[in-house]
Amino acid sequence: MWRDLAAIGRHRGTGGYRRHAWTAADADCRAWFRAEAAARGLACESDRNGNQWAWLGDPAAGDAVVTGSHLDSVPDGGAFDGPLGVVSAFAALDELRGRGARLLRPLAVVNFADEEGARFGVACTGSRLSAGTLAPRAARELRDADGTTLADAMAAAGHDPQAIGPDPERLARVGAFVELHVEQGRALDATGHPVGVASAIWPHGRWRFDFHGEANHAGTTRLADRRDPMLTYARTVLDARARAEAAGALATFGKVAVDPNGVNAIASRVRAWLDSRAADERTLDAVVAAVERAATGHGEREGVRVEVTRESFTPVVTFAGALRDRVAARLGGVPVLPTGAGHDAGVLAAAVPTAMLFVRNPTGVSHSPAEHAAEDDCAAGVAALADVLEDLACP
Amino acid sequence: MWRDLAAIGRHRGTGGYRRHAWTAADADCRAWFRAEAAARGLACESDRNGNQWAWLGDPAAGDAVVTGSHLDSVPDGGAFDGPLGVVSAFAALDELRGRGARLLRPLAVVNFADEEGARFGVACTGSRLSAGTLAPRAARELRDADGTTLADAMAAAGHDPQAIGPDPERLARVGAFVELHVEQGRALDATGHPVGVASAIWPHGRWRFDFHGEANHAGTTRLADRRDPMLTYARTVLDARARAEAAGALATFGKVAVDPNGVNAIASRVRAWLDSRAADERTLDAVVAAVERAATGHGEREGVRVEVTRESFTPVVTFAGALRDRVAARLGGVPVLPTGAGHDAGVLAAAVPTAMLFVRNPTGVSHSPAEHAAEDDCAAGVAALADVLEDLACP
Repeated sequence: MWRDLAAIGRHRGTGGYRRHAWTAADADCRAWFRAEAAARGLACESDRNGNQWAWLGDPAAGDAVVTGSHLDSVPDGGAFDGPLGVVSAFAALDELRGRGARLLRPLAVVNFADEEGARFGVACTGSRLSAGTLAPRAARELRDADGTTLADAMAAAGHDPQAIGPDPERLARVGAFVELHVEQGRALDATGHPVGVASAIWPHGRWRFDFHGEANHAGTTRLADRRDPMLTYARTVLDARARAEAAGALATFGKVAVDPNGVNAIASRVRAWLDSRAADERTLDAVVAAVERAATGHGEREGVRVEVTRESFTPVVTFAGALRDRVAARLGGVPVLPTGAGHDAGVLAAAVPTAMLFVRNPTGVSHSPAEHAAEDDCAAGVAALADVLEDLACP
Repeated sequence: MWRDLAAIGRHRGTGGYRRHAWTAADADCRAWFRAEAAARGLACESDRNGNQWAWLGDPAAGDAVVTGSHLDSVPDGGAFDGPLGVVSAFAALDELRGRGARLLRPLAVVNFADEEGARFGVACTGSRLSAGTLAPRAARELRDADGTTLADAMAAAGHDPQAIGPDPERLARVGAFVELHVEQGRALDATGHPVGVASAIWPHGRWRFDFHGEANHAGTTRLADRRDPMLTYARTVLDARARAEAAGALATFGKVAVDPNGVNAIASRVRAWLDSRAADERTLDAVVAAVERAATGHGEREGVRVEVTRESFTPVVTFAGALRDRVAARLGGVPVLPTGAGHDAGVLAAAVPTAMLFVRNPTGVSHSPAEHAAEDDCAAGVAALADVLEDLACP
């Protein structure tokens, strides 16, 4: 199962995955999903938002137990972030069948569309659209780096962009959603356990910083005459780090676009994105406000106008007490811990009872070709997921 | 003449010019050059390196007086950097004919290919190839941002890339080269003169800084566990500014490429280009060495490996005393001043007697859509160029 998936969307140079939404690599991932569903006799469907569902039993019966994750990746991502949850879902179903479990509730494996938001800039597009927390019109108008809209990209991939939007009927059929995911830090590793349960997802957001200066010749413009936005940006990068460190939060500038981006031209504009997260919203707000104030102050001294736009924000998610406690109780004594990473499970938590399992990540590395999880730990993840599903679906 | 040229390669959004070598906009500029030559009965040819020459008189007679500049631009460049020299060359020729001047030496207008190096990263490609200071093989393998080689781009534009290389016979026919150019600073403006003569071009170069860190998830990786090259880059930007300021030199980071450049991914690599210039090579070397040392030191503390590659270097150019003095004497009392900007005239100065005229730039802005020169100053430039050409060709 892994082998067929491993080759899809892998970049030869970096060894990383480039499975971006509605690309050819994404289509290959979706075909892989259909083939795995068909091999198990599951009924496969793609919903109005492009999320794939593979059903065992009658969805219309309701109160379904659903598990899965996503198959898309960040640019040059690793093999596990997303796919581990989908592969483990199919494997856990195989395990349940091997145990001869009699399922009393319908069960589905799901692959959410465009979780990473790598191409169009908004994470969890598929689950957000279904949950009604992303407006269809705004989604259709999202553009990738080449200027292609999400609507056009969907249409080119054979999916009707006019059909996207809230899907309350489908979500109403879901009695419980459990997402298994590779951990993206080292908290679990520190506990010595291969599998853990999520308590909460930190609030997080993306802010676009536009530093507007003045393009000029790098070889003839006196330093004193410059309005160089690269300087203001550099100061802001260092401020963001210092503020986050002081607050016990996270702040990262990982994406930058420079105009005109010529070696011998002072930049006219530096556009950079701040990703920031903290244990609570108050801390997060304080960090971002401090970075914005610092940037604006530097800009005023350097003749650079700074404009900050919040592009996305996800409030804190606390996973539903009852389901989380049931999962933790079934697994017995596993760590229960928070994470800074957003997930489809976090989006769905507002609409359906939701829980998450984490599989140990020995290095904590994620969103990188070096992302890794041990085979034994992945097997432990599958066994734990099977236990949880059996507990939920065969009470 | 200006009107036909003004529309070519202009970006609707920015109002800046994107006339990059061997693109459609470049082809349109070349067609404009041929049309202007034809309208004046000049014999037009494109040499082995793609430089265009429009001849009045027999090139084979030798000791020719040549004037011109380039038509290509930086990304979103202004209307004057380059084209002013070519337009003024044709206009000065018209002026000489209007005066009834009898030329005793062959005269040519030249348009050098790819002066800005905006697409393939090496400035003055056309003149460097002809002068033998850029190896044809290395030139053919230069790649643009899309991975297209210069060889393929030339071939696609109908120019044989196998033919490029040193052109000593052609240069031997040039008895004097005079390039008129808009000034790219405000030194001339400070003197109150519309036209000046170049004394020297500061030594300058381009250094590529590769900051190698480790890609990771921006939402889950503890600050202490990070190897974030964006931080090291930011510190280096500020160091470069401080070192240049202290030395009375120039240092600019204007071009950046980030991998993987995802909002929620810590960068694995930041690649940035330093453009630096100073009045003498010793100062320049000291500034760049200090920036490199500082970057390496920051990198060691932050787990980021820093690699510095010198991509180009142009030694100081002092314009030939005899020709420069003759030009200055002919124009009588105009300022004689150095510049930090590289030019084809600087490349050719090693091979043929060369001089440069500058036209006043009231704001000093260049490499920007806001670049400007007053109409009266441009007319003064044409008159001065005509005087110089008459002095040289009608002795």
